[in-house]
Amino acid sequence: MLTRMKSAVANFMGGMMTGSSNVDHFGGSDLPLKYPYTRPEFLGLSPDEIECSADHISRPILILKETKRLPWATGYAEVINAGKSLLNEDQACCEVVVVRRRLSDAVPGLTFHYWGLFDGHAGSGAAVVASKLLQHHIIEHLREPNNHNLTPTTHRGITRTASLRGAAGAPGSPSHPPPTRFFTEKKVHHESLVMGAIENAFKEMDAQIERDKAVFNVSGGCTALCALFLLGKLYVGNAGDSRAIIIRGGEVIPMSTEFTPESERQRLQFLAYMQPHLLGGEFTHLEFPRRVQRKEVGKRMLYRDFTMSGWAYKTIEDDDLKFPLIYGEGKKARVLATIGVTRGLGDHELKVHDSNIYIKPFLSCCPEVKVYPLTQYEHGVDDVLVMGTDGLWDVLSNQEVAEAVTCFLANCDPDDQHRYTMTAQDLVMRARGVLKDRGWRIANDRLGSGDDISVYIIPLMYGNRQT
Amino acid sequence: MLTRMKSAVANFMGGMMTGSSNVDHFGGSDLPLKYPYTRPEFLGLSPDEIECSADHISRPILILKETKRLPWATGYAEVINAGKSLLNEDQACCEVVVVRRRLSDAVPGLTFHYWGLFDGHAGSGAAVVASKLLQHHIIEHLREPNNHNLTPTTHRGITRTASLRGAAGAPGSPSHPPPTRFFTEKKVHHESLVMGAIENAFKEMDAQIERDKAVFNVSGGCTALCALFLLGKLYVGNAGDSRAIIIRGGEVIPMSTEFTPESERQRLQFLAYMQPHLLGGEFTHLEFPRRVQRKEVGKRMLYRDFTMSGWAYKTIEDDDLKFPLIYGEGKKARVLATIGVTRGLGDHELKVHDSNIYIKPFLSCCPEVKVYPLTQYEHGVDDVLVMGTDGLWDVLSNQEVAEAVTCFLANCDPDDQHRYTMTAQDLVMRARGVLKDRGWRIANDRLGSGDDISVYIIPLMYGNRQT
Repeated sequence: MLTRMKSAVANFMGGMMTGSSNVDHFGGSDLPLKYPYTRPEFLGLSPDEIECSADHISRPILILKETKRLPWATGYAEVINAGKSLLNEDQACCEVVVVRRRLSDAVPGLTFHYWGLFDGHAGSGAAVVASKLLQHHIIEHLREPNNHNLTPTTHRGITRTASLRGAAGAPGSPSHPPPTRFFTEKKVHHESLVMGAIENAFKEMDAQIERDKAVFNVSGGCTALCALFLLGKLYVGNAGDSRAIIIRGGEVIPMSTEFTPESERQRLQFLAYMQPHLLGGEFTHLEFPRRVQRKEVGKRMLYRDFTMSGWAYKTIEDDDLKFPLIYGEGKKARVLATIGVTRGLGDHELKVHDSNIYIKPFLSCCPEVKVYPLTQYEHGVDDVLVMGTDGLWDVLSNQEVAEAVTCFLANCDPDDQHRYTMTAQDLVMRARGVLKDRGWRIANDRLGSGDDISVYIIPLMYGNRQT
Repeated sequence: MLTRMKSAVANFMGGMMTGSSNVDHFGGSDLPLKYPYTRPEFLGLSPDEIECSADHISRPILILKETKRLPWATGYAEVINAGKSLLNEDQACCEVVVVRRRLSDAVPGLTFHYWGLFDGHAGSGAAVVASKLLQHHIIEHLREPNNHNLTPTTHRGITRTASLRGAAGAPGSPSHPPPTRFFTEKKVHHESLVMGAIENAFKEMDAQIERDKAVFNVSGGCTALCALFLLGKLYVGNAGDSRAIIIRGGEVIPMSTEFTPESERQRLQFLAYMQPHLLGGEFTHLEFPRRVQRKEVGKRMLYRDFTMSGWAYKTIEDDDLKFPLIYGEGKKARVLATIGVTRGLGDHELKVHDSNIYIKPFLSCCPEVKVYPLTQYEHGVDDVLVMGTDGLWDVLSNQEVAEAVTCFLANCDPDDQHRYTMTAQDLVMRARGVLKDRGWRIANDRLGSGDDISVYIIPLMYGNRQT
């Protein structure tokens, strides 16, 4: 499937990507890379093929070769951007992971299926590192010795019984050092332990990237979207603007929400309000419908603060002339005039251009985790989890994706294991479009995505079979 | 409907409620009350009737008299608690409000329908004041001279066209003082202006309570739930644990969410994490499934931080022995071991018992506002908005309320204007229950609510007729 034709751009890039110096010239660092730039391991591409894939002119769609198999016959396809960065900054990883209780244990404990999707920006370093390591941080957390109820033989939650009641020793509780008081213990179900493991794995992945930067060149940042299948349930963790949806019987079940300056406006404004020094005296945490001009000082203008979903009027003061913490609409919305996505990994060194204002305090590495009780439903061969980077969702709605997938799968041989990869390829094609006089065009002559696009199609019936 | 029998409790209270000193003895203040304690004005109760209503033994259900009419034939019923406070600390207000552009204007500008429900705690002062004044703060914000598009003749939004494009003058933007740059202007629709008016009205109501405390005795705090019908849309603003649902064709449409220590855990933990001095060195912002004991220091235990929905393990340190910011489950959950509701008005003086730790920084006076495009739907005589204080919802689910209301209305004469009040009475009765040997009991021998209960039943078809 990989077009063999090399464009001038690909030639230009070849030296950079496969050079023996192992230095990422884009990051402006002399430190070595922790991992060389590559494409997802499961694609099994040769260095030559990796070079060819980076053709910004022809934008060949890479798919899983028929000789390669991913767990659950997962389908995968990707395409590079139309020139916004030299490399495809998306990365992906798919594995069946065995968690041993102790590293030395011969007997495997827990097994989970794992799919990861990482969309890099300002360099490929963070995305590459996260694609190699995030699952290991998840393993570390699941290996916690106290997670004894997370075993393949039990699907029930941890249910410690409420043995004691009351709130002993609350500060200022009228009776001093209480003799024998009682307290309850919250029930924590096993889903919550897995959610907590995923949440903290993201945090430690981010902390590791920061630590690694002392000795390696880990450039940029990345979004992270991962799916886990564990003990009958599907967990989707998302930090960024990638998206996962389940398509079941043609219906869409959203499995993630996007974190952008607009969707996280109130969190960001709240933080800036509470820690105004983070704005370096150059930004205002308030939002206005447009830039405020000096001549408008003293006049009434619409604004939104962190407590507000609606808009109200205020009298413009000098402080309101500062640049807004969040500015722009839709895909053009930016935090601190710099970044358009508000959760992810890396970006520790990112600053507002020509200033000492760090962006990182406003970014969160914490994912939102959603749980889908997979084995509670029967799934047909056309029921899938679609995971895609924003390149896909920028131009196709959930509904369009669901229709395309359902329609494509209906026309495939249900016994063809390659059908999910063909579906992924079809989706990437629909989002990229075809090159016409006026750029990449998709259906109805709409503009195709010029971004990197990566798509998993994961059939859910294998989850039913596995338990 | 008001039971004439006075209990010993009601007698005891009479003097306090109707005494000429106008001092609220419960607040421990010598300042005068801004408004004397009362029941909702629209009930038109005599002082004698108000006394009788406060019978904690018989708990008479008060309803709107047949001679009284509320806008839209709104139904209303209430009952006092079973002894948890001397007075019924719920308050209510219902009005048709005319917003004049200027106070001197002879020509009315805008008209809206208004229903308010306030559930007081630690005194009745805040609830009484808010029930008298919140609508006036909303009026003030709607009167904003720039809200010129908020007129009865236009239902369209404010649509300033995007005249200019780009982000002029962002800090550190490579090109210095830009010559003529362009910028876009966000479209702000009229719903957003009404939402903003409601949001800021809550904030100013809260600020006024704080100011008033310098000269009046305004005791305690209160939740606030209000509904507005304006220019064809229904707005529901909620700060607290009251609830509003629409029942349309027997189906439930939630119109509010409750704000409690559990539902707002992450916001509260985030605030405490960022401003640890608010905890006075006595609390930890972390959550544990139970109180940590000294002997557990060094051991592994489950915890949740502000970034987490799931649970993970940490090694217990000395700091974890402090009392948790949020403790307890369900109705027993408390912030700082003190309060079980996390949004509302008042409470400025509330402290952790026997300490100097203020609760107010953790409480938010900001409502969540939901919009229902009423006139976009046809409504039958049985389609209603139900607003109730937590006394109702603690014992009846949305579904139970919907079934009770639908069933009750189906058995009423559709032309009887009193049917909505009879329905409200039925709901209060179902939530209070009947007095048996073992206390107040409702259907299936479940425990009835011992709390104050107040319920509006608002038929929606009048909104269709009005536009």
